[in-house]
Amino acid sequence: MPHYEPLNTAALAEIMAIVGDKYVLVGPDIPEEYTRDAWTPPGPPRYPEAVVFPANTEEVAAIVRSANRRLFPVVPRGGGTGLSGGTVPVYGGVIVDLSRMNQIIKIDPKARYIVAEPAVLTLDIQKEAAKHGLLYAGDPSSDDCVIGGNVATNAGGNRAVKYGVTADQIYELEIVTPQGEIVNLGGRLKKNSTGYGLVKLIIGSEGTLGIVTRITLKLNRLAPIFTTSLALFPNFSDAAAAVTVILDDPLLDPISLEIIDQKTMAALARYREDWRFSEQGGDCLIIQLEAKDEGEQAEKQNQLAAIIQKAGGIHLHPDSEKVWQARREFGKAIQAESSVLGIEDVVVPVDELPDFSAQLYKIAQTVGLEVRIAGHAGDGNVHIQILPGDTPEPEWESKFHHFTQILHSDVYSRGGRISGEHGIGVKRKQYFLEHVNPVELELMKSVKKSFDPQGILNPGKIFDIAGI
Amino acid sequence: MPHYEPLNTAALAEIMAIVGDKYVLVGPDIPEEYTRDAWTPPGPPRYPEAVVFPANTEEVAAIVRSANRRLFPVVPRGGGTGLSGGTVPVYGGVIVDLSRMNQIIKIDPKARYIVAEPAVLTLDIQKEAAKHGLLYAGDPSSDDCVIGGNVATNAGGNRAVKYGVTADQIYELEIVTPQGEIVNLGGRLKKNSTGYGLVKLIIGSEGTLGIVTRITLKLNRLAPIFTTSLALFPNFSDAAAAVTVILDDPLLDPISLEIIDQKTMAALARYREDWRFSEQGGDCLIIQLEAKDEGEQAEKQNQLAAIIQKAGGIHLHPDSEKVWQARREFGKAIQAESSVLGIEDVVVPVDELPDFSAQLYKIAQTVGLEVRIAGHAGDGNVHIQILPGDTPEPEWESKFHHFTQILHSDVYSRGGRISGEHGIGVKRKQYFLEHVNPVELELMKSVKKSFDPQGILNPGKIFDIAGI
Repeated sequence: MPHYEPLNTAALAEIMAIVGDKYVLVGPDIPEEYTRDAWTPPGPPRYPEAVVFPANTEEVAAIVRSANRRLFPVVPRGGGTGLSGGTVPVYGGVIVDLSRMNQIIKIDPKARYIVAEPAVLTLDIQKEAAKHGLLYAGDPSSDDCVIGGNVATNAGGNRAVKYGVTADQIYELEIVTPQGEIVNLGGRLKKNSTGYGLVKLIIGSEGTLGIVTRITLKLNRLAPIFTTSLALFPNFSDAAAAVTVILDDPLLDPISLEIIDQKTMAALARYREDWRFSEQGGDCLIIQLEAKDEGEQAEKQNQLAAIIQKAGGIHLHPDSEKVWQARREFGKAIQAESSVLGIEDVVVPVDELPDFSAQLYKIAQTVGLEVRIAGHAGDGNVHIQILPGDTPEPEWESKFHHFTQILHSDVYSRGGRISGEHGIGVKRKQYFLEHVNPVELELMKSVKKSFDPQGILNPGKIFDIAGI
Repeated sequence: MPHYEPLNTAALAEIMAIVGDKYVLVGPDIPEEYTRDAWTPPGPPRYPEAVVFPANTEEVAAIVRSANRRLFPVVPRGGGTGLSGGTVPVYGGVIVDLSRMNQIIKIDPKARYIVAEPAVLTLDIQKEAAKHGLLYAGDPSSDDCVIGGNVATNAGGNRAVKYGVTADQIYELEIVTPQGEIVNLGGRLKKNSTGYGLVKLIIGSEGTLGIVTRITLKLNRLAPIFTTSLALFPNFSDAAAAVTVILDDPLLDPISLEIIDQKTMAALARYREDWRFSEQGGDCLIIQLEAKDEGEQAEKQNQLAAIIQKAGGIHLHPDSEKVWQARREFGKAIQAESSVLGIEDVVVPVDELPDFSAQLYKIAQTVGLEVRIAGHAGDGNVHIQILPGDTPEPEWESKFHHFTQILHSDVYSRGGRISGEHGIGVKRKQYFLEHVNPVELELMKSVKKSFDPQGILNPGKIFDIAGI
């Protein structure tokens, strides 16, 4: 690990002078939530030495410059809803909580863009766009996540099938560099060959190459009609096979194509009575389509119904709000029935999905664990919930580790990767090291060292850097 | 500049052992074309010390490793059709001509991707895709450019309006790093949050961060119907204003939206008789639309005709092959009438285009030069051809320089950049240095230094690195 100094009185005074005393928390005033995000790291909780709430970019930059002079780690934090421990203070230091930087700065409906600070809820960006008859296409299936966090992990979500991931929505980023300088990267441009494309490098770097302080996002036209369908299948492999048929159809062009296995559907029905979408149960696809008018809508629905029927499924039209609410909360429904749970976020080429999911059930059976599969089938990114089943508690950790290793090897063998959208953070660091190409890893590390020679910004995430 | 050693006998013998004697050119055997690309640098021609023709990735890597041991520059070269001197051997060394690596390795029409070596003509990738009823969406308006060069400059071209730039077509790259290692970056994945997004960093880095040796590209569905229209306007500002109206229309969704001013149209008509598309002349838009069937085609054409009429234009349907051929060769038509010529490649936010183009004519008038404007109006990327007009030859260089400085300042003031798709290379290096944010430049340089500590790969492009 890099060399750090403890946060002494002088350092603390300097930070307080930057943001004001009341925006600094230390010692017992630091709530336990700052030891984790939505994933809790194993072992005793690691607290930061201080939590700081800057008001603006200049304050963020001043804190980072102080950290470079005084050698303490700086860990940026957005909504705290990450799933990989990206905001865990591995080496102590200061958590920069960006929650005061939560304003939508500007929306230009004609030129179709919006400018937001990092702690704006992604949901609020969607709502603000919708007010102007526009669509913010990023949609990471969460009521609580903030846009800065979406940038940090390059979140994908429900609409990536048609509209791409967060990186595809971004025109421009203002960042504070790991050395405390402020710079705008990118531009409101559809093309740009003017030097290296640094903006894409920052996106998905999990707060290790810069703190994102302002974000300019593209907005799309909002289609006049959205239709959400459910398709229920007698088994998972039929549902998975229908995914590519739907994607291959030239008419449908779905904006979302989600899969939820039948055990998760049953858990949802137990969790909330009105999330029982059918009596017969089954493995489920959620298909959201856009249409420009009722004629196109009817044409698409007929086509979709024919595909589902041919694939052996049943086509339902439940209330779409309820469907998406259930989709967002499937994790909670599973957690309600099993407090012991592992979550994986693998991604494979879409055409690999049927064979991959069949293999997944086999791996679980071999190891002796249960799995639930749900997620973004349309882009090959599935969230796998791993449950102990009959496994006694003392054996859980080692079985889970064993399962994950076989899973990841299988994913890599198909050209997949171990995270589609949650990121590596702390949680997947060891697994990442096992599979990443060593040349690629060295390039990543060399970029990190060049941006952050003292290892100040969010150290211990994605990979460790020794001796800088 | 970094420290280099001349290519001595031992180094040359090592290179010959790697690729075979007959694939190495030295001294007077090196043709003059290796001193330039489609842009000729000012001053006496700079020859490389050798030109090498590797057969495969391993040979490329061996050459680069040799260069790192013996400290000679390595300059990758694809089709030699670049417009910024990206393949000029600024500091001598070895040009790695990739022309033998010109095979399409694989096409998978079902999973919709193609794998190609860097020297495959982009046109041949389009043709191969079309054979399978698919579209390769990259289209840099050139019959001669190769896919490796498209990656190097992140070429945009005609269809970026709908399909994005080269970066948006790429799943995976195999590269040889500046230190001579071979690595695959990216994957055939729609989402990936597994470490830094290095593949996007390589794209557009103009051969300074890696030599691209294999490229996996996305293919799109080929629409059943394409329609090319011309719209002629009495003046440029009306044509430019119509661009945003066409883009704002929710029905049309053009795949190409090009602009050509009336003087260029007149030059085309003089260059080839069958490129006279109308008797009355005028400033011109080329609009290409896709349609799923004849009904949609008719609906779109009616809508487009109404927009053009309302904007004061005339709607024509000439032979589309002829239109696109003329579009690809407008530069040749202008060059036929003026051997002295400057070409710029600026990009601005699309909504800035009408005001920007009006300003452009004013700048030309003030400085006393003539301009021709043509290019990718739909994404704000216009190619400006600058002609001496009545300017006496001795004054041309300084006037052109003066014009370019005012132009670039205007472009930056609108949030634009000095290259939309041609890149910086040697040609725009000084202008780039004048305008780039110094923090951004330092980040770029630090990335370069971290990838290429000895400054071996394509030195002197985009920016100079001192003392590494």
